[in-house]
This record gives sequence, C-alpha cells and structure tokens, in this order.
Amino acid sequence: MKHTHYVTAAALLGAAVAAIPAHGDSRARDLQRAATAHYEAQYRSILDEYAQLVEIPNHASDRTGIERNLAELERMLARRGFRTQRLEAPEASPALYGELERAASRPTLVFYAHYDGQPVGTSGWKTPPFEPTLDRNGTQSPLRGALAAMPRVPEDAWRIYGRSTADDKAPIIAMLAALDALRGRGEPLAVNLKVFLEGEEEIGSPHLARIVREHADLLTADLLLFADGPRHQSGRPQVVLGVRGVQSAQITLFGPARALHSGHYGSWAVNPAARLGDLLASLRAPDGRVKIAGFYEAVDQKLADRGVVADESLERELLKELRLSRRENVDQPLARTVAWPSLNIVGLKSGDTGPAARNAIPVEATANLDFRLVPRQTPGGVQQQLQNHLTMLGYRVVGTREAAEAAPDRDRLALVQWDRAGYSGARFTEDAPPVRALIDLMRELHGGELVVAPILGGSLPLALFAENSPVSAVVVLPIANYDNNQHAPNENLTLGSLRYGIGTFAAILGGWRVTADD
Amino acid sequence: MKHTHYVTAAALLGAAVAAIPAHGDSRARDLQRAATAHYEAQYRSILDEYAQLVEIPNHASDRTGIERNLAELERMLARRGFRTQRLEAPEASPALYGELERAASRPTLVFYAHYDGQPVGTSGWKTPPFEPTLDRNGTQSPLRGALAAMPRVPEDAWRIYGRSTADDKAPIIAMLAALDALRGRGEPLAVNLKVFLEGEEEIGSPHLARIVREHADLLTADLLLFADGPRHQSGRPQVVLGVRGVQSAQITLFGPARALHSGHYGSWAVNPAARLGDLLASLRAPDGRVKIAGFYEAVDQKLADRGVVADESLERELLKELRLSRRENVDQPLARTVAWPSLNIVGLKSGDTGPAARNAIPVEATANLDFRLVPRQTPGGVQQQLQNHLTMLGYRVVGTREAAEAAPDRDRLALVQWDRAGYSGARFTEDAPPVRALIDLMRELHGGELVVAPILGGSLPLALFAENSPVSAVVVLPIANYDNNQHAPNENLTLGSLRYGIGTFAAILGGWRVTADD
Repeated sequence: MKHTHYVTAAALLGAAVAAIPAHGDSRARDLQRAATAHYEAQYRSILDEYAQLVEIPNHASDRTGIERNLAELERMLARRGFRTQRLEAPEASPALYGELERAASRPTLVFYAHYDGQPVGTSGWKTPPFEPTLDRNGTQSPLRGALAAMPRVPEDAWRIYGRSTADDKAPIIAMLAALDALRGRGEPLAVNLKVFLEGEEEIGSPHLARIVREHADLLTADLLLFADGPRHQSGRPQVVLGVRGVQSAQITLFGPARALHSGHYGSWAVNPAARLGDLLASLRAPDGRVKIAGFYEAVDQKLADRGVVADESLERELLKELRLSRRENVDQPLARTVAWPSLNIVGLKSGDTGPAARNAIPVEATANLDFRLVPRQTPGGVQQQLQNHLTMLGYRVVGTREAAEAAPDRDRLALVQWDRAGYSGARFTEDAPPVRALIDLMRELHGGELVVAPILGGSLPLALFAENSPVSAVVVLPIANYDNNQHAPNENLTLGSLRYGIGTFAAILGGWRVTADD
Repeated sequence: MKHTHYVTAAALLGAAVAAIPAHGDSRARDLQRAATAHYEAQYRSILDEYAQLVEIPNHASDRTGIERNLAELERMLARRGFRTQRLEAPEASPALYGELERAASRPTLVFYAHYDGQPVGTSGWKTPPFEPTLDRNGTQSPLRGALAAMPRVPEDAWRIYGRSTADDKAPIIAMLAALDALRGRGEPLAVNLKVFLEGEEEIGSPHLARIVREHADLLTADLLLFADGPRHQSGRPQVVLGVRGVQSAQITLFGPARALHSGHYGSWAVNPAARLGDLLASLRAPDGRVKIAGFYEAVDQKLADRGVVADESLERELLKELRLSRRENVDQPLARTVAWPSLNIVGLKSGDTGPAARNAIPVEATANLDFRLVPRQTPGGVQQQLQNHLTMLGYRVVGTREAAEAAPDRDRLALVQWDRAGYSGARFTEDAPPVRALIDLMRELHGGELVVAPILGGSLPLALFAENSPVSAVVVLPIANYDNNQHAPNENLTLGSLRYGIGTFAAILGGWRVTADD
C-alpha cells in the first residue's frame, strides 16, 4: 500500500498525525478509532483534567509543587481504580507507582512517564508557563476559559502552551483518557497495567537507581513502555529502542577577588571570561567533535551506527525552519549525530551584558555543560576525563563554592559542580518478543508510516531501570510533536498529538498480545 | 630628604595620603594646610553637600536623574558665584560650564570632572548605590544619619560607599570645598577658574567632540586639569600626562531560531555559546595579547614605553590582595600593560546558568568587549579591524538587532553593536610651561612622593578636547583611592582622599603660577 500521507516537517508544523490512514480492520485499529471518538466526545473534560495538572509548578526542587502534583495524580489514578504507592528516598521527589487488578493470563506492562518539569528559566515565555494557554492558529487565550466557549472539536493544529504540556504530562493524560475510552465501551484490557510516574527526571534522576532497586519487585513486567520524548521530526509515529545518557556540569573560572576597572587593570589581572573562551575552545571543535582525551574511547562504533537512517530532505526542512543554512558538522546527519556522545554548552554568564554592561574585569565566568552519553560511557568516566582535561590545562579543580571561596589563589582555579545525577546511555534489541509485539501492533496501526528509531538523542533513565530491576525489554513511545519547545520557553503540545496519544495507548492497552514465538 | 612615608598598597588600603610630609614652607603648602583645617572644621557641611550629590542617580541614559544632577550642580556653582551655562547637543546629557570673574593678569585653568556615573549593574552591592553609606572600619550606617552623630573629624581610613562617590563626584566636591577654604581665609585666586562638568563620560562621551567644538571659545585656557581617575596604587599623590582611549562593543552570535533540546539537537544545530568561545579564543591570546590582525600597527612603541616605571613589589602586594598568584602576562608589568592597547571581555551571556540552567541549545550568545586605545589608534580603525576579523572567520556582520532578526540565515551571523562613542588615546608632554608649573607645584607639596605617570590605563576623553578646542596642555590629577571599586559594585571613597583633594586643589587654585621660562 502506498503511504500518501508522508509530509515534510514544515508542512506538518502542528498538523500531527490525525490523517494517518487505517490499514484495513483489526482489533488495534478498532480500539484506536473508538478512543479517538471518545476524545472527540469528551475533549472538554479531558482538557480540563490536563489543564488542572499543567497548572501545578513541577520543578523537582519545588517541594510544595511536587506535593501538589502527587496529590493530584493520586486522585486521578484512584478515580480509575489504581492502587497507588509513593516510592520514596531521602531528599527525593517521590515516584508514584500505581497498579490495576492483575490477571495471570495477561502480559504485564509498566507505563513510565515523569511528572516533574524543566526550570522555566528567566525569560522568553510569551504566556505564563503555569497558566495553560490555548493557541488557535495564533490567537491565544487561557485554556480553561476557552474550553467553556469551545463549540466544536479542537483542530489538530491548535496548541496548548505551558511548562510540561508535552514533557511529560501529556502522556499521563493520554494514557488515562485511553483507559476511560476502553472502559466506556466495555473493552477488556489486554494487559496488567502498572504505572510508574517519576518526579526527578528533569534533574537527572538522582534517586531513581535507589528507588528502582528497592522496589524492583513492583517492576516485574514483560515490557517497560517509556512514554516520553518527541515524535519523529517528520511528524510520523515513532518508537525508539534506546536513549543517550546524560551528565551535566557547571564550570566556574575565577579572576580578581573584586571586579576591577578594565582600563586600569585589564590585561594585567586575569580575565576569567577570556579564560572561559579558551577553555570552551579547548573542549569542543567547531564541528561539535569533543576534544577531551578519551571521550570516544568507550563508544562501540558498530552499535552507534546500527539502524541509523538519514533523511536529508527532512533535515533541510528543519534547518530552514530554524533559520540555519547548515548543520554544525555538515557531514554528520542528525540520526547519526544523536547516536554518538556529545558535549554542548547550554549557558554562559560573566559580568553583565546589554545596558548593564560595565567596563570591568569580572570576578568569575561560568559555563553550563551538557554531556550526552552512549552505552558503556559512564558519568564517573566522563567526570574523570573532564577533570584530567582541566588539570592538563593547569587548573586546580575544586568541587564546592566554599572550597573556591577559601582558595588563597584564584589563578587557574576551576570550580566544577557536577549535576547530582547522571546515567549512561542504553539500547535495547527489537528481537525480544514483547518489543517485537509492540512494534507489530504499531505497524498494524500505522503501516509504513511508523519510524523505528535505534536511539533518541535525548536522555531517559532507561539504564537505571535495566541496571537495577528485572526490566529487560523497553520501548520508548513518544506522542508529543517534535517542535514542542521541550526544555525551552514556550513549551507546547499540538492537540493532534494528544489525539494521537489517546488512540495509540488505547490500542496498546486493549490490543497488545505477546506470544513466545512472536 | 628621605621619604619615610612610602608604604605598600596593602598597608595603604584606605590609609590614603594624610601622612604626606610638608617640605618646609611655601605658599602652596600654606594653602594646602589652610584647606585641610577648613575640612576639619567644616566636614559636616562638606559631607552633607557630597551626600546630596551622590544620592542622585546619574547614568547618562537616566534623563530625570541627569536633570536633577544638573539642577543641583547649578545651585552649588551659583552659590560660589559661578556664571553657569548648559552646553547641549541633540540627544545629549548636557555638559555644565561655569566660570568665575576673570582677570587678564592670571593664567586660566579649566577644571574638568564628570557628573554621570557607570550603570550600577544587576548585583553585588552591599549597600544601596544611591544611598551614600559611611563605613567606619567595617561598621556601616547611612552617611546623613552618621553625620549628625559624628563627634569628631572622620578618620582618613573611613569610606563612603555609593555610585560615583569616587568616579567622579568626589573631585567636584573637593574643588568647591577648596574654593570655600580659600575664600574663608580671604585668599585671592591665582587663576581664572572655569569648570567643565561632563554628563556622558561613562558612556564614552558620544557628544563631547561636538560640544567642545561648538563651545571652543569657552575653553581658551593655559591648562586643562582633568580631575578623574584613581591615585597611584601605592597611595602616593599622582599626576598623569596621558590616557588610553576606549571603544566598547557588544557581539552576539546566533544559533537556532528557537531554543532546542540539547539531547535531540545538540551538536547538530549550531551552538552559539560554543561559537562564542571559539571567537573569544581567536581574539585574544592567553597572555592578553590581541590577535586581531593589524591591532598593534598604529602603536608608536617608543612613545608607549616612554616613562614606564615598573614597581614589582607593589604589584606583588596588589596581586596578593586580589588573590591572584600572577599577572596575565607574567613578563609585562602593570605600568607597561596600560601603556599599550588592550582588549578585554567584560560580559558574557547565553542561555541560563545556575539553578535556571536548562539542557537546551541557546538561540544566541553575547559578549561585551572593551578596547583600550593608544594615540594614533582610532575607534574607526579598530571597528574595521574587528569587522575584518569576523569576516575572515566567515561571519556576516550586521549592526542592528533588526537586521539580525530579519536575516534569513543565522549561521555565521554576527551582530556587532558598537558603543555610540569611542575615542583615541592621548598623551601630553611635560615640557609645556603650564604643565611644568603644575608638576612643580605638586612637587612642592609632596616632594619625591609624587608619581608623574606617563599614562593612565583608564580612558578619559582628552583626545576629544585636544582635537576640537584650543586645549594643548593637559594634566590628569586623580584624588580617589586606587581601590575605589570604580565601575564595579561597592564604589567608595576614603575620607583621606577627600581631604587630599581639598588640600591639593586649594594649593593649585591659590598657588599655581605660570611663567614663560618655567
């Protein structure tokens, strides 16, 4: 069958995947259609529940917000008959575990999502990040007010703006609506459903290993379904079989103990901003290649390049949309770039810029770095490599602000503050029967439209599950539009993505079956 | 005579120059002593007038603050019998000109100071910048309240904190108090006194050339006395015969049109923060040497090195105080560093750092640069050199934010925003009779303690006077303590500096005499 609905990224901005064709009849497709009908009938109450969840601030450091999220999620799960349990660790923002009644005859699925979100940052939001806002092709209004006055089913291209609208509250809402849709039609579930809602994913899952280890028994399952990340840039449905790991750091270099007039003392007193420029240039080649010694040593090149499929025309569309004439390394397509480890600079600060700029040598200069890791690269290994790099450049490295303040000599002093958490990358095989069954089901729904990607560039703590629990089969199934501004200001979800999520999850919950000879 | 009062920088923190010995009797020393006595009797009213002036915000872009400063200065000058006149230009913060009655028999002195100040920046102040605060060896209280309760003459080591306490409102107050001291004793002035108070020095004097040119007749004089800058780091009295010029710029490089998830798109989409690191590393060697082609071409090496006297033990003390084990270029003493042109990075900003940091590729990255120029180096020349440098690196350069926003391609796009103003360095000979007379008078006051420096590292718009008016003889006479935190948070003046300024200016106004064969 010819797939006439293949469209480019630019054409798909927000158009989502509502137009995916049905490939004849099957139980999965039937359930998908039923769930879509449920969405079209119940969009007001679905979006109302969504708004209620998005309105609650959810950075992992915000204890009040985290508690309110937990209470709201517990109510939402309890309403659907889940028994819930908070999985705690000292200082941790708890994970919320829930399960429905089990039957031995059914395979077991753990549904993972996270309810915490990225910081909102200091600027750039066009709408308040915790006041979900509906955008109807450019016209914006508060979602709740708009709902009351909404005469018809929302268009798929409309968007809802707000922190975590996509990452990662959308899958939670979609999964619960899918469950409601199945029950509304009296459809039995094909699976024993467990949910695992993490509360610290966006700060690097610092307590996840411990929580998973201590509650490994709860996680006995045939498959871990990771509902996070964006769909493919083409807008096509996507499943992903691996992720990169992550380790973030903040590096601060020092100048004189007090800011000095740049005329009287410039080029005499060490300039920490200039030093930082030199350091950054030493870490990374202009094409993005990491220059830290040993950085690529642990990479299994064959694994990294396995399954990589470049789509140059899609990339051209993406670059155009981003107003960039070329990618950082012109020879490296996106699909391959994200299969290799990377280092990126995500923040810089020294002195002041703009109208507040003063002609003074700053006292310090800071850069925030983000390492993305592949399997066999460990956070500890990368930390050691950066430490060696700084030592080679003549820096003395300290790990706390207090140690830096106490140092008698600020020359060649580097304060390196590692993110509390980090984890390796992880990749899973598509040969395991539960994985194969899920891919088959997705193919049944979407035919050749489906993208089966070997790895996601972003990081999800898959390695922490694989290393600390019985989980051995994992599929990442993203529902959000690729242009959701994840981690950035103006995060959003297209309504077509929500519709897609509800239909897809309903088909899985009602239709996923694993046979040993699959 | 042996000068027993030479002390190191560290020992002199705030101790100022009150202990300078008197070298026998002379009219100049007599007037200096009389003015010091005036200060000791009238410190309450002098500091009250000072507080009143420092309380008024004075960034050149603050039209309300500038108008209030002008009105206050006009009142202060009128009280002393000056005829005043605002020297205006379109969009300019006016200069204030004032003169006393002239007599043909006396030489004429133009006293220059500026009443505008640096921005206060976004952080770092321990006391409110426009609420002058008295620090009595560590105990701080609002200056005005402290004055009422002050039982005795303030100690020389005490400090007054606030923006422009030193740079450059202190000389204005000291000059007026000196005038009051002379008049209180019935001493005739030895000079025709003109004052020129600039309102845009800290933004690079963008309209000064025009104002000076249009009012050149007012500036007919034997000497321009530039009362700005800090005293020598040793705490010794200092006169300076030249300054570096200045040209500031802000450079912004661009990444994707919207912030992108650093996992999904890092090392694929251009990272502007990494690009900025590369650019900074290309501009400046680790030892501070500027790598822009042609940057040193206009430098007259013989002139640059003329009169340079290094003081290594003083530098060691200074470095220790700044908690730096060595200077940027270990082979280059401070006195020589400031006689050559320089480039410094004074600000950096991209994405967010600290708790607000997000794992996202920033949309842009900004650096603020500060060029210091020597004679024959022009702002236009340096602008062209930086433009050439960026072009060589493959950047397309635009000059306005609008042009950058309109650019279809953000790759290798550089927005360079030059400060509205800039000027060349300038150096004057000490052989001109009016200059020689002033140095002689200062030697009479201070003997071998006096430092005659060939050049100040900081910038003052001397070149704009030299190029646009009859002024040909200039001496810079700073009164502020060297550690006044000029241009930085917590700017301050030691009270010993104020006492020094009043005594020195009284000696000059009452005792300066120029003879042709000087």
